Amino acid sequence: MRSRRRVTLESVAAHAKVSRQTVSNAINAPDVVKPETLTRVLESIAELGYQPSRAARQLRTRRSQILGYALGPGTYSVYGTIGDRFVHALAQAAQERGYRIMLFAASSDDEEIVQFDELLSGADLDGFVLTNTHQADPRTTWLTERDVPFVTFGRPWDADHGTHPWVDVDGAAGTAAATRHLHGLGHTRIAYLGWPHGSGVGDDRRTGWSSTMTELGLSADERWQETTDNATEHAEVAAARLLRRVAPSAVVCVSDTVGLGVVQAAESQGRRVAVTGFDDSAVSYVAGMTTIAQPIAESARRALALVLRQIGVESGGSAARHELLPPTLVVRGTSIRPDPLSGTVGS
Amino acid sequence: MRSRRRVTLESVAAHAKVSRQTVSNAINAPDVVKPETLTRVLESIAELGYQPSRAARQLRTRRSQILGYALGPGTYSVYGTIGDRFVHALAQAAQERGYRIMLFAASSDDEEIVQFDELLSGADLDGFVLTNTHQADPRTTWLTERDVPFVTFGRPWDADHGTHPWVDVDGAAGTAAATRHLHGLGHTRIAYLGWPHGSGVGDDRRTGWSSTMTELGLSADERWQETTDNATEHAEVAAARLLRRVAPSAVVCVSDTVGLGVVQAAESQGRRVAVTGFDDSAVSYVAGMTTIAQPIAESARRALALVLRQIGVESGGSAARHELLPPTLVVRGTSIRPDPLSGTVGS
Repeated sequence: MRSRRRVTLESVAAHAKVSRQTVSNAINAPDVVKPETLTRVLESIAELGYQPSRAARQLRTRRSQILGYALGPGTYSVYGTIGDRFVHALAQAAQERGYRIMLFAASSDDEEIVQFDELLSGADLDGFVLTNTHQADPRTTWLTERDVPFVTFGRPWDADHGTHPWVDVDGAAGTAAATRHLHGLGHTRIAYLGWPHGSGVGDDRRTGWSSTMTELGLSADERWQETTDNATEHAEVAAARLLRRVAPSAVVCVSDTVGLGVVQAAESQGRRVAVTGFDDSAVSYVAGMTTIAQPIAESARRALALVLRQIGVESGGSAARHELLPPTLVVRGTSIRPDPLSGTVGS
Repeated sequence: MRSRRRVTLESVAAHAKVSRQTVSNAINAPDVVKPETLTRVLESIAELGYQPSRAARQLRTRRSQILGYALGPGTYSVYGTIGDRFVHALAQAAQERGYRIMLFAASSDDEEIVQFDELLSGADLDGFVLTNTHQADPRTTWLTERDVPFVTFGRPWDADHGTHPWVDVDGAAGTAAATRHLHGLGHTRIAYLGWPHGSGVGDDRRTGWSSTMTELGLSADERWQETTDNATEHAEVAAARLLRRVAPSAVVCVSDTVGLGVVQAAESQGRRVAVTGFDDSAVSYVAGMTTIAQPIAESARRALALVLRQIGVESGGSAARHELLPPTLVVRGTSIRPDPLSGTVGS
């Protein structure tokens, strides 16, 4: 039943004919071991190729090969979030480089900073991977001031915090692709349902729609926009207003859950409306909704490379400190052509 | 900007008027520090209440306060899985007890065992939390033989592996509750769509339906059952067969994605069929499907308590080594009453 291929403390002890504790002392407190015993243990360690424990190694190298990652409360939702998918990909990518991910829980920036502090003074992490970046993010300021290696999955979103390494997905390119896709199906009355102004991610996605509409010579003025938080029931109310006001034949949405609100509002009003969401979540899959997929595995690999370069473990690869990756359009059943009657109903 | 409340190596160094390296030596290699300097540093450490690093502490206590948790490839799906929700709850519960969760990736039992071995010889974990248990699970045998503390979220499912600590959710109680709920709505033609025989979780959920049907004096013979894997498109094909064969007015399903297949098959055949799923996932939420919710946060708390008791950190609480928690019925739109015409169509 012994499938261990690694040499253990026990096998070194057996080889050197000493106790397990003596091997441990030879590694961690050599001064308490008799010189001749120490020599024998060190020879056994060399001969068997024993790797001392992470703790002992880390005191020597000052590297723990552990990165910290915060799980926020937002991810407790019944939906599989982008964050969940990211941490899977990150754990896989890290393991391939001999690194591990240590999870911690934080429900606010301040809590996360308290945890940074605790982890740095107690757990000897090599660095952090952050998500959910936003304007004036105190977390990145805190880490930068203390010269702690980190990378964010998400842009800083404000000019004066833009110097740390980050990886992000180009949200504006996603909503631009959705808008062009709908226009290609024949739509010209394309509205936008997004999050309230002021969130980096939300404003970026809105820009992809509005700039593409302008390029196409179509209206992107305020009448064609509504805002809502991410709850489907609130999105449905906002969508109902938008559908009545401008009778769009298509709505580009900031997320899949918001998109579901548009699908439901259109159904209630007996309208045929094309809808695109964002995230390629279970919601879009079940609702048969066209959406934008983020390259999560690639984002995790690039984020890992950036933080390892900061730590000093990696030197190769691109010299870029910021990487903006393109998302992909996923076409499903809500990519319908415009109804010839649309634009006449309710306006 | 200094929001640190913890004492650092630097502040000890400043207080004792020595270098950072000297403080580090005083903790990790006291024999290389001059006795009078060592005394001064140790006094500063005591006066300031400095906590030496986790690595140094762990060499002293032989405890890392870290638990390992494998992320499997199954969780890469677009759905938020039970595993994702469990690890969030586990990280939160662990943190409240001063423990952290270290993630590793494994796509098979053998890979997971290789990682156990590597983590135990390299990273000084205190124990593991395992998911996705199954019959003849080589992982629990491996850990048990090596006396490594661990707990599983999921039963062993075979008699001779049943001695290690585990927490699980009573799946049979869930499908029994779903069956009684449908019967209470007036259904008597209640079929079951499950996974192929031989999976512990799947067989357990089937039993809840079949034993309840028998109690109610209703047929649970093979004509009333079909099996499918968890893919909605395969479930739809199996459901179509089941609907044609016995024209059930309701179908109890082993999972939400399987339940969605029944919803789609019923729609294709123009039938009104009540459906219950299992897991309270995004799929059931979006599809408006009645389902069974697992007590994930409570499961994580109990699993943590069991593994901490094994490690020797906790002694209080229940003495039980095995905890089977009841799930909850979540009633949604697919809880429809039987159509008076059902049972006559297609039979």
